[in-house]
Formats: sequence, structure tokens, C-alpha cells
Amino acid sequence: MITHINPVGSMNLLSQIEVDRLKQSASGSLYQLFRNCALAVLNSGSKTDSSKEILERYRNFDINVIRRERGIKLELFNPPEHAFVDGEIIRSIQDHLFSVLRDIIYVNSHLQANPQLNLTASSHITDLVFSILRHARAINPGADPNLIVCWGGHSISPAEYQYTREVGNELGLRELNICTGCGPGAMEGPMKGAAVGHAKQRVTGSRYVGLTEPSIIAAEPPNPIVNELVILPDIEKRLEAFVRLGHGIIVFPGGVGTAEEILYILGIMMHPENRNQPLPIILTGPKESASYFRSVDEFIGSTLGPDAQALYEIIIDDPAEVARRLKTTMPLVRDYRKSVGDAYSFNWSLKIEPEFQLPFVPDHDNMANLNLHWDQAPQQLAANLRRAFSGIVAGNVKESGLRAIEKKGPFLINGDPKLMKMMDKLLRQFVEQQRMKLPGSTYVPCYRIDR
Amino acid sequence: MITHINPVGSMNLLSQIEVDRLKQSASGSLYQLFRNCALAVLNSGSKTDSSKEILERYRNFDINVIRRERGIKLELFNPPEHAFVDGEIIRSIQDHLFSVLRDIIYVNSHLQANPQLNLTASSHITDLVFSILRHARAINPGADPNLIVCWGGHSISPAEYQYTREVGNELGLRELNICTGCGPGAMEGPMKGAAVGHAKQRVTGSRYVGLTEPSIIAAEPPNPIVNELVILPDIEKRLEAFVRLGHGIIVFPGGVGTAEEILYILGIMMHPENRNQPLPIILTGPKESASYFRSVDEFIGSTLGPDAQALYEIIIDDPAEVARRLKTTMPLVRDYRKSVGDAYSFNWSLKIEPEFQLPFVPDHDNMANLNLHWDQAPQQLAANLRRAFSGIVAGNVKESGLRAIEKKGPFLINGDPKLMKMMDKLLRQFVEQQRMKLPGSTYVPCYRIDR
Amino acid sequence: MITHINPVGSMNLLSQIEVDRLKQSASGSLYQLFRNCALAVLNSGSKTDSSKEILERYRNFDINVIRRERGIKLELFNPPEHAFVDGEIIRSIQDHLFSVLRDIIYVNSHLQANPQLNLTASSHITDLVFSILRHARAINPGADPNLIVCWGGHSISPAEYQYTREVGNELGLRELNICTGCGPGAMEGPMKGAAVGHAKQRVTGSRYVGLTEPSIIAAEPPNPIVNELVILPDIEKRLEAFVRLGHGIIVFPGGVGTAEEILYILGIMMHPENRNQPLPIILTGPKESASYFRSVDEFIGSTLGPDAQALYEIIIDDPAEVARRLKTTMPLVRDYRKSVGDAYSFNWSLKIEPEFQLPFVPDHDNMANLNLHWDQAPQQLAANLRRAFSGIVAGNVKESGLRAIEKKGPFLINGDPKLMKMMDKLLRQFVEQQRMKLPGSTYVPCYRIDR
Amino acid sequence: MITHINPVGSMNLLSQIEVDRLKQSASGSLYQLFRNCALAVLNSGSKTDSSKEILERYRNFDINVIRRERGIKLELFNPPEHAFVDGEIIRSIQDHLFSVLRDIIYVNSHLQANPQLNLTASSHITDLVFSILRHARAINPGADPNLIVCWGGHSISPAEYQYTREVGNELGLRELNICTGCGPGAMEGPMKGAAVGHAKQRVTGSRYVGLTEPSIIAAEPPNPIVNELVILPDIEKRLEAFVRLGHGIIVFPGGVGTAEEILYILGIMMHPENRNQPLPIILTGPKESASYFRSVDEFIGSTLGPDAQALYEIIIDDPAEVARRLKTTMPLVRDYRKSVGDAYSFNWSLKIEPEFQLPFVPDHDNMANLNLHWDQAPQQLAANLRRAFSGIVAGNVKESGLRAIEKKGPFLINGDPKLMKMMDKLLRQFVEQQRMKLPGSTYVPCYRIDR
Repeated sequence: MITHINPVGSMNLLSQIEVDRLKQSASGSLYQLFRNCALAVLNSGSKTDSSKEILERYRNFDINVIRRERGIKLELFNPPEHAFVDGEIIRSIQDHLFSVLRDIIYVNSHLQANPQLNLTASSHITDLVFSILRHARAINPGADPNLIVCWGGHSISPAEYQYTREVGNELGLRELNICTGCGPGAMEGPMKGAAVGHAKQRVTGSRYVGLTEPSIIAAEPPNPIVNELVILPDIEKRLEAFVRLGHGIIVFPGGVGTAEEILYILGIMMHPENRNQPLPIILTGPKESASYFRSVDEFIGSTLGPDAQALYEIIIDDPAEVARRLKTTMPLVRDYRKSVGDAYSFNWSLKIEPEFQLPFVPDHDNMANLNLHWDQAPQQLAANLRRAFSGIVAGNVKESGLRAIEKKGPFLINGDPKLMKMMDKLLRQFVEQQRMKLPGSTYVPCYRIDR
Repeated sequence: MITHINPVGSMNLLSQIEVDRLKQSASGSLYQLFRNCALAVLNSGSKTDSSKEILERYRNFDINVIRRERGIKLELFNPPEHAFVDGEIIRSIQDHLFSVLRDIIYVNSHLQANPQLNLTASSHITDLVFSILRHARAINPGADPNLIVCWGGHSISPAEYQYTREVGNELGLRELNICTGCGPGAMEGPMKGAAVGHAKQRVTGSRYVGLTEPSIIAAEPPNPIVNELVILPDIEKRLEAFVRLGHGIIVFPGGVGTAEEILYILGIMMHPENRNQPLPIILTGPKESASYFRSVDEFIGSTLGPDAQALYEIIIDDPAEVARRLKTTMPLVRDYRKSVGDAYSFNWSLKIEPEFQLPFVPDHDNMANLNLHWDQAPQQLAANLRRAFSGIVAGNVKESGLRAIEKKGPFLINGDPKLMKMMDKLLRQFVEQQRMKLPGSTYVPCYRIDR
Repeated sequence: MITHINPVGSMNLLSQIEVDRLKQSASGSLYQLFRNCALAVLNSGSKTDSSKEILERYRNFDINVIRRERGIKLELFNPPEHAFVDGEIIRSIQDHLFSVLRDIIYVNSHLQANPQLNLTASSHITDLVFSILRHARAINPGADPNLIVCWGGHSISPAEYQYTREVGNELGLRELNICTGCGPGAMEGPMKGAAVGHAKQRVTGSRYVGLTEPSIIAAEPPNPIVNELVILPDIEKRLEAFVRLGHGIIVFPGGVGTAEEILYILGIMMHPENRNQPLPIILTGPKESASYFRSVDEFIGSTLGPDAQALYEIIIDDPAEVARRLKTTMPLVRDYRKSVGDAYSFNWSLKIEPEFQLPFVPDHDNMANLNLHWDQAPQQLAANLRRAFSGIVAGNVKESGLRAIEKKGPFLINGDPKLMKMMDKLLRQFVEQQRMKLPGSTYVPCYRIDR
Repeated sequence: MITHINPVGSMNLLSQIEVDRLKQSASGSLYQLFRNCALAVLNSGSKTDSSKEILERYRNFDINVIRRERGIKLELFNPPEHAFVDGEIIRSIQDHLFSVLRDIIYVNSHLQANPQLNLTASSHITDLVFSILRHARAINPGADPNLIVCWGGHSISPAEYQYTREVGNELGLRELNICTGCGPGAMEGPMKGAAVGHAKQRVTGSRYVGLTEPSIIAAEPPNPIVNELVILPDIEKRLEAFVRLGHGIIVFPGGVGTAEEILYILGIMMHPENRNQPLPIILTGPKESASYFRSVDEFIGSTLGPDAQALYEIIIDDPAEVARRLKTTMPLVRDYRKSVGDAYSFNWSLKIEPEFQLPFVPDHDNMANLNLHWDQAPQQLAANLRRAFSGIVAGNVKESGLRAIEKKGPFLINGDPKLMKMMDKLLRQFVEQQRMKLPGSTYVPCYRIDR
């Protein structure tokens, strides 16, 4: 089956050089990246979070960029059928396809071509994150602060999913916009809820921003509500994009990925230079999830201490209150940005240390060598714990991680015994609550904690 | 509590004479009508379908039209709280308020002022229906046929509700628009589903048309998805609006109101002049509702005969197929209209006999005098059965009907014994399946079938 | 030559009854009115201001309304060729055609059908003017005061025309909108100028409102810049529309029509109830026109007195100053309307006495019987002088007037000798300056002043 | 006088690194370039075409980019007053300011940062032209071919100017868009005319594309109608942008710049690979200019031969015919692009040889060394003649050229005597007809032809 897909937005405007670079016959790595991300996007709504399974099932899938009178077209061979309705591609998936194309070409030409770009320099990394978001038109200078980042698991219970929708509805009723990791579960619920809330308020120009990265997109394909999809090059830049774009953060229940996100933002907010940054962080869930947040809170209390705990608020089973709290903080964000001459649409003034920016490659060595002891500043510990959880996410769902585990067995993680015990406990709870993988699959841990 | 509400759309443009007519001190009947409809709209999302209960609970509610520099404002005293979020009225409710104002003023000035308007003449009734819809901008001449009327009960089971959403989603994915009676249940589900389908297809300008009338609006308040609300003056004009606006009809499970709607459209489509009209009618529901449609089909077969049965199709548990069937019929509707020089946006050529247009006042006498015997043409019988069911709807949920029943006891319905038996059976099933009233209230029949 | 014209805007929505009423075979007077106005509009850009000539040249012109699948179409027989470019009608002319259709049908159904409408009652006349403007969507409640009425002759010198453009440019640079009588000359110049000014300021949604009436439209066909054309039923309602819609008034040089307009607004503004109304009135022209304004000022000073003179300001040869003066007055208009609870978009609170509202039929008797003596209040005298000038306009360019003059000779005007002398002098100047008719034709006076 | 200017469009989105690069304290050359172009834009509407004069008059002008909560602002010190109305900057000038900022930053980061960019490779030059236009959103893939390039002098007679407006009006009536060099004269007239034509046709989204370059912008500041201003880095890329963007070309009377443009396009169209390219080229002017086109035609005939003459058509005094001819060619352009798989919005398939792409630096040596003899292919000769005229433009109005002439005297041009004679004759005519400089200044030739 061959299908031709018209471009949307401005993405029919590729130069001949750009088209050539994407040709299948070309060196290939860029083509592979594009093909796999495109497949992930076309696979939206599928019932598996296994990248491997998807890539295998659609071995015969192929994609070409061809030049036409209105710019370019995409030629698809054997795409997943559920991306189509009566033979026509679903328009949101079409959008997402061209977002993938846009970002992969942009990052490629930016990174490969620009020797001035020193990607170990903090300011250059931030500049790249900004440039990618700007190029994707995800930075909206006209608007007042109103973008709420929602984090949480892709595999959550029906009650939790329903709760994320209700929170979304209350956010939408207050004309707040949503930014998530763009997959299913807690990444989809708030968007769907907000869509209804926005409809009730007749809001036009609603934003459902999805931030993803090539190694996660197959496991967590963009849900169709996402109307601004951005593919950042790696998890660290994706996390930086979240915290520089967002004006408030909600954390719903989730697994290791969510834990990674919490440690990331706490590690940053604990930096003395960020002391005055008004960034509301709310951990919330339905009654059923109260114990989950107790575990997380306990873990943070014991590892990072009460200063870290003071940075967030836990609200159980009160969607309207969550939304109200965020809505009332927006003017504070606004005033702060104004007072320091920072942009509403991109938080330049948030200090992010290189240890939160530099990519962490989760292989067996790096995982084994993580410093998980008490002999460091809390934000340093947060950075290292973040890396540990990031590695487990990779081992759970990312292609490279899955392959490494297949070959060498589980990651070994070691550190201070007390710390290891706490970590073990938290992870065990995630497993018990089926937060590691979509239900239906049995979870085989990709790590072993040495204590 | 007093609140001032700004107008939306063009409705801030009332003339001084129009404002005066609505003054509370004025003769009063127009004001009462406006006040009660406004209250109904503000009460959207409430959990009761008893007009009486609502009117009593909000005895202290009042509404004034006041003149201001940008036109007019509405002043509300003691409005229902759930119409507001953090003190601000929900914008869709605000929209609906001004739709109520718009239509009540328009119909009033049109009806009272225009002696040329002979409302017993069929063409003048149609002209009025057209004028109201045009004034409400519900007629969209630019579009190709794409408006699907969805009928069905306001009180349906969760499985049925979910099914209506899925059908809505499939309609939305095919870029079809929705028109319903604008209340909850089967009037809301298809709209919510279509909203998601439209979002997936990035459709802008989606239409969620809600058609209602003053005597039903309190029992079935407009759901917030409705973005075009029109208040027709009575049930007969509302039904005419449905069938002249719509390009296809879906009937979901429902109670007597739904039966009334089915009899109405079948009675019309059986008219010889409508033989060539392509108007797809699909009865559909989830597996659980298969028996419901069997009953309805049986009742129609026995009363109106196989010619009537040939006018619709029953599809069980296949949302995509329902949507596909309608989508593929739209070009036929288009071609037919073009061939006879009729408008896509208003079906002038559909023949509607006066017995389907003239208001039926459901009092005890009229109900008792209905001709429910076999000695008439099938479309005549359809018209009379329609009236019988219409009277029961009034007795169930409309204010005037409720008052009449309270005073004089249930309506007596009599006719041919075999016919009465069939009717009794159908109604009994509606009661058993809790289709007469929202669950939670016990249903006390408002009629007695004499057989 | 037969052409079919598609409707624009919402005007494809005629009911069957409305279409029938316009049928050529029907009683005919409405059809004649429509046909002649349509012809006038199609004749935009022609070089004559003689209605008679136009009607004769296009004797074979015909127009039909026909029903089609997207509503209606207009069928034109032998239309003026210059309304077309390469066989396609110019879109602004198409717009104007449908404005004609819209207003003629609306006024007809409103006036004929509504017995409540007492057109000798001041409030009902105002209500009708409002309703026509509202129906034509010429009332824009969202905007702050910004609409400048420009009056002046259709036959002015090139220097004067250039000056009106420059004033228009300065108004446009200040984001003010324009409302004129919609013909050529001083009715076109300010619009063209403002269009350039608006383009420089990237203003979208600019308004170029043209107000006309059936008896003048042929002599002064709408210029193509007009993007909101409204056809009021007679000169008095047209004048009322000007002063209730506008927020400031500029008077450029002109002839009797302009004199009529000046007397109209001065007569109204002299009413004690309008004492606090902030309505800037500026008489302006290039250096060459200084003497013109001296004559007018002198005439007003001698007839209505210094109180009338105090109501306007004369600015010679300073376009920027004219625009600046108006721009700075807009906040005063805004504040006044706000303080009295009046709409920005329609000046309800301006008091207009019936003598300025009731139609004056300019026949020989009425002209001869005008009270043009000193024995009346100045605003009464203004009203009668207004009627005298109105009659002369009719005698100059309106079909009925031309016919009356042809049959019975010039209108006789008599009154107080001193007054008559002043009037004679003013009119003589108009003749000398070629302000009575478009250059090229010799002016034969349609009046005789008896003194 | 200090003024702060808000950004428009998306140009408030500069990264910190980009802002830093523009700082006055920074290396400086980029700042100087930005400052001078900004000054040129602010000076729109001025009465001189002498860059030097402008730069001297506004010695005290300064501009800063500062960071603010909604992105950036521009801070202006002592800007030209006529860019403001009542203290507010004119919005089109504000637009142009940010276009300058956008393109200067883009070209800078593209050129400096990208070592892959081989600017002596033809395909890379084209890629850069495309990238700049794409980044400026001047490439519109959705539209059918409709963009007419109008060339001609900045200093033309009133009759010629009026003629360019009339041609513009006829183009606008046919919904064609305009692209010019964006200065006054023949670059402004067609835009003003088209603006009126578009208004008559109610066209929205009209395009008035102005292409300029830093060395010419001061002498030919963008006229305010331009709504898409693009600053290309040099004259060769500007010329390439014209011919790849445009779908048809009109040449009005002009001076050496116009001659340069004619030679450029003829040289390209004479390339065998462009034989099938449908690109209508029309030379047109009022009756008064007939002799001008005779001279040009003669010059081309004698230098490039009849093949070159066959590429264009001369139409005298018939604006409607010019527009009609172009309008009817658009479908041919469309079909050709479709048949070869080329984009409507950018003519990739037009072959442009490096000699038309590589920048020519017009210094005394390069001018003296031009090969102006018959011993070369006609398109080669066209390329060299193009360079000669380009050098004279520089000597007439560009800052660097003016300085070189000031220092070393006129450019010496030599070549084949017969050729030199023809060139001399043509240039002499330009001088006589005052096409070299704006009237008012006496023209002192910047060249000497050696024959």
C-alpha cells in the first residue's frame, strides 16, 4: 500500500539540499531516524509501548520525501492502517508527521552545520533548545503566562486517568493551556479534559503542546489532541524545554519517568539562584493515589530533605483546587518575569546547571558508576538520582536500552545502602502498581539494586 | 448575588423598543418566558429534568436587560452557581443566554407584529422556521451537505451513552457536523464524540447545533458543547427545523420523545411527494440495545407497515459503519438538491403536511380525542401517534403538562384495542428501561391507555 | 448578454416568500425599485450623474432572483460592461448588488408588514433606522468611537478632491474609519486616502461605510472602496443614520446637498437637549476653497446666528490638523456616551425633532409653502432651509424631481426678502463654482427664488 | 528623543546569543549594517536618494535591541520624525524595521556559522536565497502562480508614475500580486494601483513583496505599501530572488538599474536549458515613453540579437492589455511547473549560471577589466553588460560606490568601440530623461566610456 501525504503548515518548504539529505539512499542515519519517528507517529493509538514490537511489526514500512508543485509530499509504504479513516490520513497524524520532519531536519542542519555551537556550554545548549522551540513556533510571545506542564505515567489506572481529565477540564475552564510528554495516560488525560473545558469557554487557539524525543516517541506516541508537537534531540533537552516553556507544573501519578521528572525539577529549583523563581509545582491524584504521593514525598524527604519538599504542594482529589491554585499563581509568574526583564514565553532566567543539561548515556558502565551516596549537595544527589531513573526508563521502553539489557542483563545500581533501600522500595511500589509498563505485559525489571 | 453579563456575538444590539418590551414591569408574559428560558440555560449540567423543581429552587432568580455603552448587558440576580467558574460565567452558557434573548425577541416581534403571517398556512409556517434559523445564523449556504441530526433519549444507560460518543467520534473523523435536541444523554454524547473526532482532524468551524423550545428547555438544558443554540417556538417548528436543516438522521435509543421523532419523520417521508428525497435514517445502538430497536421496528411494522420500515436501516454496534453509511449518502443529498434547484442548507422541497406542522396542545380533551384507529392513511396514523407521544412527553417533563396532570390526573388515551395494546407494550418497555425520566426518580405514568 | 452572479455574505438566504415578492411578474413596484438601484450600483464609475440618462441608456437591463443549491443567484440581462473585468463582475460591485437586495427586502418586509410601526412617531423612525443599520451589520458594538462622517459635493475641483484624499490619509494614519454618502468626489476621496493610511498602519477591518437612498443612488453610485453599503429608504433616514452612526463630522466643499447636510446637523445640535453632546464638526478644504467656507459661514451667521457658528470649526489647508482634532475628540465622545449609558455604536441620546425626521416631499406646492421667514426659532428655520435645499437636490439629480421640473418648470421658493437674497447669493456661488452638476454639463437651475 | 518600538510578527523571538551579537559594543560591523538599514527604513518617504546625505543628516541616530517580558524591543535614538504620527511609529515602518532585523540576523548566522555553505557553488547560492525567502515567509506554497515582478526606475516622470499605477490597478483587478524592488517610482506605483484593484475585488491576503539589499535600501527606501520586505545580502541574490519568486515580469521605464535587470533576465532566459520556461516579460509604458523602449529594444537587438528580443513583448499605453496578457499566461506557468515537478512558489528549475550569481564588486579595476567585446556567447555578453550597469548603479547611489568615485574619479569602461557607442548612447538618454537620479539634483556621471 502506497499513500501520498500532503504537507501541512509551512513544511512543504524544503530546499533541494534538505530533501537530498533525507533520501533513503543517503548515508542513512538521518533517514533511519526520520523513518522510525514517522512510524511512531503513524502508530498513535496503538496498544503497545514496546518500540521493538512496533519496529518489527512494521518492518515493511518505508517513507520518502518527494518534490511536487506545491512543495513536497511524503510517500508512505505500508503505513499502519489505524492512521487512516476511509483511506484518508487523520489530519492530526499528518500534522505530527510533518512536525517530525521539521524538527529532524532543523536539528540536523543546526547541529551538523554549526561549529560555533559548543554543546557542552550551558548557554549554547539553552540556545539550541530555544531555537528548536522557536522554529517549531512553540514560543508565543504575545500570551501571558498560561502554560501548565503536566507530568505523569503513560500507564495509569482508569480512576487516575479520569482524574487527569477532570483536572484538565478545570484547567481548561480557566483558560490555561497544557504541555505534556504527549503520549497516552497522564499525558493525554489533561489534554482531553482541557479540550472540553476550552470548548465550554469557547477558547480558540488552545495549545496542547507535546514534547517528545526520538528514543521515547515509539513507546509513547503523540496522542491526537496534541496540536503542537516538538521533537527535541534527547531527554535532557526535552526536560529543559518543559521547564523553560511552562509556567506551572502538575505531577500526576506515574512511574520511573515521572520520578525522573520530579528529581529534575527539584534539583533545579534547589539551586540558590532560583530561590525567587515563582514556579508552582503541584502533585495531585484521586483518593486512590494518596498512598503513591506519600511514598514519593517520603522518598524526597529522606533523600533531598525538607527544603525540597517545600518546593511542591500535594493536593488529593480536588481538581478545581489544583486549577485554581495554578491560575492564581500566573500573575506572580508574570510579575516576576517582568521585574527581571525575562520573557513570558521562555524562562531564560531559570538557572540550569550542566549536570542537568548534559546527556546521560544509560549504559551498564554509566549506571554502575553513578554516585548515589550522601557525600554531595542535595541538588547534586538529585541530578544523580535523576540519571538513575532515566536509565531505568531507557531499560524499560527505549530501543537502545532494551537492546543493552537483552545483551548484558539488568543494569546494576549501587550506592549507599540506606539510599538503595529507599530507592528499591519506591521502584517496587511502581512495579506493584503496574506503573512500569502498560497493563497486560508482565514487567521484568531492567535493573538490579545492589545493597 | 448580582452579576452583569456582557453580550456575545451581535446580540448587544437591541433597540430601545426591544429592550422596553423585555422589561420586567412590562406586560410580563414575554419577560416570564425569557426569565424561565434563561434560568434553564444557566442550569445546564444540573442533575434533574423536572422543570417544576428547577423553577422552585430558583424562585429568587431574576434577570434584567440594561443598556450600556457597548450595547446591552444582562443583570442576573441569584443565578445557579454552577454556571460560573471562580465568579466568571462560563462562556458557552453566556452564549446560550444570548441565543435565548435573540430568539425570544425575534419570534415575538415576528409573530406579534406581522399580520401577513398566516400561521395556519403551511408555507408561512415554513417561512417562519426558516426566518428564525436564518436570524440565528444556523443556515450556512456555503457548506456542502454535512449535518447529521441525532435523536435519542436524554435518559440512557452508560453503555448507550458511550456508544453515542463513539458514533460521534466516527462522524467527526469524517468531518460531519451534529444537530441534536441539545440536552443531555443521546443529545450530548454524539457532540462530545464529534468534538474529539473534529480535533483529530483539526476541523475548524465545527457545528454543534442544538434545537430546543421553551417548554422543554428546562428539562433538557443545552449541553455546553452546543455552539449554535436555537429556540424554536414550539415542538412542531422544532421538528420541522430538524428535518429541513439535517442531511441525515441517526436515531439512538430513547423514550417517548424519540418515538415521537421517529413517527414524525416516517409520517413525512411516507408522503408520495417525498418519494425521491434521499434522507438516510439510521437506527443504531450498542449490542445491549438490540432488543429496544426490535420493539420499535415491530411497533412501526404493525402500525405503519413495511413501507415505513423500508425508510430506515437498523445498525447494531458498529459506529464506523453508521458514519460511513451517512458519509457516503451525502453526495446523493447534494446531487438531489442540485437537480431540483433546492438549497443545500435548508430542505425547501421536503413536503410537510399541515397535520405535522400545526401545534398540538396536549390537554386532556385533545389527548382523549385523538383518532387512533386504522381507518386512515398510514401517514395520518403516524401523525396522530406522533401527537399521542408528544402529549406524554408533555405530561412527563413539560411545565404545562405537569400542571395539567397534577390537576386532572393522567391523560386518557383510547383507540383501536389492538393498536392500544401495541402502544401499551412499547410504553411499558420505555418505563422498564428507565427511559421516561432520569434515573433516581420513580416514574409515575402520566397517561392511561384505555383498551 | 446574460450573467449569473453568486451571492456574497449571508445574502444567499432568501426565503421563498421573499424571492416571490421580487419576481418581475409581481406587483412590480418593489421589482422596479430593486432593478433601478441594482442598475445604479452596476453603473459605478460612470461619468454622468443624470439618473434619467442612465435609465435610458440601459433600458434593456433586467435582473432576476433565481433559487439555487447554495441559496439564490442574480441573473443579469445586459448589465453595464464596466462592472466586469474579463467577463467577471468586480467583487465590490457584486457586494453592493447584494447590499441593495438585502436592504430593499428588509425595509419592504419591515414597513409593509409591521402595523405597530408608527412612522410618524419619532422613536419608531429611529427604531427603523437602527434596525436597518443593524440588519446591514453596520453597527459594531465592539469598537470605540472612531467613525468620521465626511460630507461634501460629488462635483468638486481636482485640488479639492486631492485635499479630501490627504485628509483621508491623515484620518487613516490615525486609524479612524470613514462614512460618506458613498458617491464620487468628496464622498470617494476620503475613503481612498484612508485606504492608503490604513495600509500604512496595517489596519485590518477598516470600515468605509456608504449611506445612500434609492432616489440618489443613480446620480451618486457607490464608489468601489465602500465596503459597507446601506440603502436607507429616504433622505431623512439617511441623514439620521449619518448622525447617529458617526462620532465626528467633516464637511468638505460641496453644493446644495452639502448645504442641506450642514443645516440638518446644525439644526439638531442647536436643540437644548443636545447641548452637552460632544460632536466635533469641522469644515475644511484647501486654500482654494477658503472663500467657499467664508460664504457658507456668512450664510449661517446671518440666518442661524453665532450660536450655530459656534458649533463648528473651519480649518483651511491642514489635513493633519483636521485628523488630529478629530482623533483627540474621540475620547470625549467615548466618555460622554459612557456617562449617559449610551451605545458607542449608535447615538440614541441625540435628540432629533420630528421636523428633521419626517420625509419632505419636494413637489412644487411643498417647496412654495416652506416657511422661510424669521418668525421662528433658529432650529426651526434650519429645518425649513434644509427642506429647501433638499428640494433643489431633488430637482437637480433625482428622478422624481427631474420629472416634476420637466413638467411644471422650476420650483418657486419664496420667503423673507433678506433671507431670499442670502440664499440666492449662496446658490449662485454654487452654480459658478460648478458644484451643482458634474462638469461638462451646463447647469439649468431647477428653482426660482422669488424676492 | 528616545522611542521604544514593540516587535511585530514573530520577531520578538531572539535568543540571548542573537541579541548579544547585535550589541553596539560588539565587533560592530553587524551593528553598523543593522543601524544603517534601520535608518533607511525609518527614512521612508524622504525626498532624497543619496545614501550619504541620509547618513550624514542622521549622524545622531542610534538603535538598540533590548530584552523585555514579551521578547525584545527596539530602542531608537533620534529617529527621523516622519516615521511617526502623533508620536507613534507608523506600523508599516515598524514592520519593515523588524524585517531588517530578521534578515540581517538570519543571513549573518547562516553565513558565518555554516562552513558547509560553499557560496561559490551555484546550488548553495540558490539554497541560501531560498532559505532567506522561506525564513521571511515570502514563499507561499498554497497559492497558484500569481506574483508579477515589476521593474523600473525610482525616478520616473509623473505620467509614467500614473501609468504604473494604472497597470497596478489592472493587475489588482485580476487578483495578481506584486513584487518590486520596494522603493519609490516604478517600484511604488504598481503596488498602490494594485492595492486599489485588490480593494475593488475585496482580495484579502494581497502580497506586496519588496526585495532589497543593504547597499541600495537607503537610496530606495521601502514604500509603505510593501507588506513583505526581504533584505537579501547583495544585488545578485536579490536578482535571483526576483526571478525565482516571480511568475511574470513587467519592465517599466527606468535607468541603469532597470537596464541591469533586463540584461540579467535576458541573459538567463537565453540559456538553452531555459528554452521551455514560460516566463512572460512585458516592457510597457505610456505613450510618452514609447521612444524609451525603442532605444532599449534597439540596444538589445544590436548587442544580444533577435533571439533576445523574442523573449519579451513591448506594449505601449494599454494597462488592461498588459494585465490580461500576464493573467492568461499564469496557467501556462502552472502547467509547466507541474509537468516538471517544480514548485509554484519557487522556480527551482530555472537554470542560472554562476556568472549571474557570483557577486560583482564594482571597483575601478573590476569595471575596467570587464570583457565588453563580441568574442563571447550572447548570454556571456549579457552577463558582462549587466555587471557594467550594476557598477554604474553603485557609482550613482550606493555608499561604497560613491566613496570610490569620490576618491578615484569616474569608473573607466572600455570595450569594443561599436558596443561602447551603443552603450554611451543609451546612458546619455537616461541622463537626458533624468532617470539617473531623483529630479532636483544635477547628475554628474560616475563613469567614463572609453571609445
